[in-house]
Amino acid sequence: MALEISRLFPQNIQELPSLSGVRIATAEAGIKYKDRTDLLFIVFDKSASVAGVFTRSKCPSAPVEHCRISLPHGVARGVVVNSGNANAFTGRKGKQTVDTIICAAANALKVKKNEIFIASTGVIGEPMEASSIVNLLPSMAKTAKEGNWLEAAKAIMTTDTFPKLATRRFDCGGETITINGIAKGAGMIAPDMATMLSFVVSDAAISSQMLQSMLSEAVQESFNSITVDSDTSTSDTLMMFATGKESFPCITSKTDPRYEVFSKQLRALLHELALQVVCDGEGARHLIEVHVIGATTDNTAKIIALSIANSPLVKTAIAGEDANWGRVVMAVGKAGVEVDRDLLTIWFGEHRLAINGERDPEYCEEKIGAYMQNKHITIRVDIGLGTGKATVWSCDLTKEYVMINGDYRS
Amino acid sequence: MALEISRLFPQNIQELPSLSGVRIATAEAGIKYKDRTDLLFIVFDKSASVAGVFTRSKCPSAPVEHCRISLPHGVARGVVVNSGNANAFTGRKGKQTVDTIICAAANALKVKKNEIFIASTGVIGEPMEASSIVNLLPSMAKTAKEGNWLEAAKAIMTTDTFPKLATRRFDCGGETITINGIAKGAGMIAPDMATMLSFVVSDAAISSQMLQSMLSEAVQESFNSITVDSDTSTSDTLMMFATGKESFPCITSKTDPRYEVFSKQLRALLHELALQVVCDGEGARHLIEVHVIGATTDNTAKIIALSIANSPLVKTAIAGEDANWGRVVMAVGKAGVEVDRDLLTIWFGEHRLAINGERDPEYCEEKIGAYMQNKHITIRVDIGLGTGKATVWSCDLTKEYVMINGDYRS
Repeated sequence: MALEISRLFPQNIQELPSLSGVRIATAEAGIKYKDRTDLLFIVFDKSASVAGVFTRSKCPSAPVEHCRISLPHGVARGVVVNSGNANAFTGRKGKQTVDTIICAAANALKVKKNEIFIASTGVIGEPMEASSIVNLLPSMAKTAKEGNWLEAAKAIMTTDTFPKLATRRFDCGGETITINGIAKGAGMIAPDMATMLSFVVSDAAISSQMLQSMLSEAVQESFNSITVDSDTSTSDTLMMFATGKESFPCITSKTDPRYEVFSKQLRALLHELALQVVCDGEGARHLIEVHVIGATTDNTAKIIALSIANSPLVKTAIAGEDANWGRVVMAVGKAGVEVDRDLLTIWFGEHRLAINGERDPEYCEEKIGAYMQNKHITIRVDIGLGTGKATVWSCDLTKEYVMINGDYRS
Repeated sequence: MALEISRLFPQNIQELPSLSGVRIATAEAGIKYKDRTDLLFIVFDKSASVAGVFTRSKCPSAPVEHCRISLPHGVARGVVVNSGNANAFTGRKGKQTVDTIICAAANALKVKKNEIFIASTGVIGEPMEASSIVNLLPSMAKTAKEGNWLEAAKAIMTTDTFPKLATRRFDCGGETITINGIAKGAGMIAPDMATMLSFVVSDAAISSQMLQSMLSEAVQESFNSITVDSDTSTSDTLMMFATGKESFPCITSKTDPRYEVFSKQLRALLHELALQVVCDGEGARHLIEVHVIGATTDNTAKIIALSIANSPLVKTAIAGEDANWGRVVMAVGKAGVEVDRDLLTIWFGEHRLAINGERDPEYCEEKIGAYMQNKHITIRVDIGLGTGKATVWSCDLTKEYVMINGDYRS
């Protein structure tokens, strides 16, 4: 099924700057798709620091299990990513497939097996053959070249309608540092297919421990604050690598002032990638931004915000361009955390629709109707109890979502 | 918007037997709808025992708050139900509306105010006028007659496409006892409109305390085991009344052998009503029955079963008649409770699709494809860890659901 490009498509997709010593190759392995690339090999010419955040699913894929085991080694020399098959719920054979690919990549680069990382996205439960991938890796190791980020982003797409890339270049303690990132993911788990994947690389020198700390923090306000359909993939993978250019002394402590400089840029980059994922949410026609303030804690604020952002009735209302704040009340009520109905205030954009437990006396159907035609809808809820706050992003639930996910295999 | 009658429509909708001393009147109050009844008044000629189970929403409607306060009194003489406006999130005015209606009903019947119960279903957040209801109650109190259950079920419909009724007649300790029930509800919360409502009446004599105990137990395996869209209404109300015919000594203890006889029939009746609600789920084309066995506890089994039943990706797959068991794995994994991927077994109907953490070696796409065309799809998952089990019912997620909920106000 050919998918139309999302109408929330960012206008500025372009090649990223190349990073020295980071070489990229893509190829057509024919795992599932025809006439497009489906295999990505990222090669680090020298040892890179590595950090990762993975799905919380209790049924993780074989590639996720491999990455979790290799991560403590703290060194990366290569990453193999394929689209078309998630190699998830594939039992012992799935693990063998991972081992075979890891071996081939390690041999091609003449590095250790636990320095190769792997991710797969696509159909769940279909046995995956290693051979077509394994056969391509040696030549890819040779032809991989600096740059090529746009091709990398394209090779890992599944039901994505556009490639997702972001970059930051900034001064970090007197040195110009670059962070490049790519991502894919159209549902939290796309039809049949799994997953949000993202790979981020910087030329800064950062110890694996500090890199993990930065990544774990930054993911909270980016990838862990977006939701397309509340479904969690078996394969979600976010990995970050730092190649460490020689002129940049390694960041090894949080007290290093560059830690916060770098972290801030990383947060912004992950946020940009995460929003691209939401904007390519299956069938999405509106980006929904939910702010919850005045909750008892930040944690309860996030629970309420996710309850709103995941509510099918809120999401279908936005799809219908209907400022149905009654459904927001419903979603706040079902979140199960402390709220007082009569203290709630609700805005859509700048329009206050409800206050003190009832409809705003100045509610104006016409004004709010015009606002709802925007592509980017902001819902703000003040719980009125404390200072806890959270923001999450989601997209609307459209007929197209159902068609993409219901008709995919037919 | 005129809705087509659900294709899961039960074939046997019919009038229920009348109950002595239980009189019913319906009327057109014009609260929102034109040319249909939207007001129901149930009158108990003598004091009835009463029990109730209400929404867990932290933003309950004004009618729910009234019922919660009156319930401990343990006596019911009348129930007023309207459709078209939920009187939810309507602040102080909403409470005044409830008080005015309660007063009028109590005056019409010459009973105490805390012997009148009330429920409202419809738009959230719209102020609701009491006058049209209040004006009708005195004449309804006079014209109310025994029987009339089908009319009662019709008056409380919102986006329901068929009225929901069930009855049981059985021997209970040598006496023939009847239980009648009506329900409405098309989403857990219908578009704009709220709610699952159900009212059950028996001519048995049962103390309010025992009635509450029976109802609270029976609701677990019926209304608390169904889900249409995971959204919880501000107004969900299930109330039960026992009028106590003279020839039937009152059940006042769980050790009374009739307690279990009655409870069993009540469970069956509530189950039948609950399935009618699911079968009228907005846009539903398939009834989905999810069995989870082998979980560590019954509670974790229910968490897993609800994770499957609420997953948009599972629900869209069923809509597309796609035996996408990979999404079931995903939903099991995201439930967050203890599972071992490599011990999972998954069946659709009698077809085992996955075992030991991978696709069943005898998986046959053709056979399972034929099964998926049934209207009633059973998903069974064996977690393989213990003896915990649970069953929940849901319906598929279709384009029609999105249209009903997205286009409703336009």
